[in-house]
Amino acid sequence: MAAPIDFWFDFSSPYSYLLSEKIDDLAARFGRTVNWHPMLLGVIFKQIGAVPLTEAPVKGEYSKHDFLRSARYLDLPYNPPPVFPVATQHAARAYYALAVDDAAQARRFARRAFRAYFVDRLPIDTLDTVLDLAGAEGADRDALAAATASDAVKNTLRSACTGALALKIFGAPYVIIDGEPFWGADRLPQIERWLARGGF
Amino acid sequence: MAAPIDFWFDFSSPYSYLLSEKIDDLAARFGRTVNWHPMLLGVIFKQIGAVPLTEAPVKGEYSKHDFLRSARYLDLPYNPPPVFPVATQHAARAYYALAVDDAAQARRFARRAFRAYFVDRLPIDTLDTVLDLAGAEGADRDALAAATASDAVKNTLRSACTGALALKIFGAPYVIIDGEPFWGADRLPQIERWLARGGF
Repeated sequence: MAAPIDFWFDFSSPYSYLLSEKIDDLAARFGRTVNWHPMLLGVIFKQIGAVPLTEAPVKGEYSKHDFLRSARYLDLPYNPPPVFPVATQHAARAYYALAVDDAAQARRFARRAFRAYFVDRLPIDTLDTVLDLAGAEGADRDALAAATASDAVKNTLRSACTGALALKIFGAPYVIIDGEPFWGADRLPQIERWLARGGF
Repeated sequence: MAAPIDFWFDFSSPYSYLLSEKIDDLAARFGRTVNWHPMLLGVIFKQIGAVPLTEAPVKGEYSKHDFLRSARYLDLPYNPPPVFPVATQHAARAYYALAVDDAAQARRFARRAFRAYFVDRLPIDTLDTVLDLAGAEGADRDALAAATASDAVKNTLRSACTGALALKIFGAPYVIIDGEPFWGADRLPQIERWLARGGF
């Protein structure tokens, strides 16, 4: 079986949410699985001197319009969050904490967290909301609270961000297939062709 | 017949080149024509404080890779120019000068200029090269040289840049269909759906 593909994202990234709804099914059609890697775009942007897309002059306004249109194009619900972007270290740590024992549960939590923020407009930057979302996927709330506060899980997230920088990741979503990098949900057609042909 | 669509571009923009090879045929399939509007991204970027994509930290390297892959994806030739980006005021002025008397000739010149830079790696920043390219499309070399140096044509290009800023254009290519803005060659699938459905 071909190697898993890597999906790097931030829980506060609109295009990451859009891709998160498509990438597993697309990969499965070509006999691939996907490794999910939450990271913190704030860490990446600080390192390379970038700003969140919506804060860019002029382009920022267009981007908010494009989020909505791109969601419609992909037949996905999208309700602009009341606060954007938000800090996602709690969500990312919860993901890595859950993944230690149950990768499938972590994946379900990630999907639920994306939808909570971009569809239900919930404050996923708060630990309480994150624990509620994980609890809805069957996680033990107290155990998860302790895990996300542990040095081990904090270090895992730090390692993910360091790894992203080492891979020259500068934005999200960022997909790597057998070493080939694809930035943005709008690269879905190229990703599909790459998976179908093994390159092009 | 539905209103023409507007295609804003800079002759030194790789994704503009890619879209320039597709937009007229796509529009024609839906009974539309396209108005081409060369502009100077340097003027736009200066106004909004942006830098050329290839000069952005980390993202710049990826973008060079993405130009090539996106060209292959669209089945278009692409040979990275030896100098990039280049100043395009001569090419843009020549376009507007030609368009006064012969819109079709101006369009053919524009296609030839894009291919000259992105396929044949010619220095389209020089007036000599621009006049050669226009001459190959039947333009009178001396008359065009005089026209591109005229205040009238210089002002036309200035007006185009001012108009682009007024339209909140921040990059290229930028397509506007009945008021709906699309930035980037990677919005081709959305442009196609918009033309097919009159929105979505």
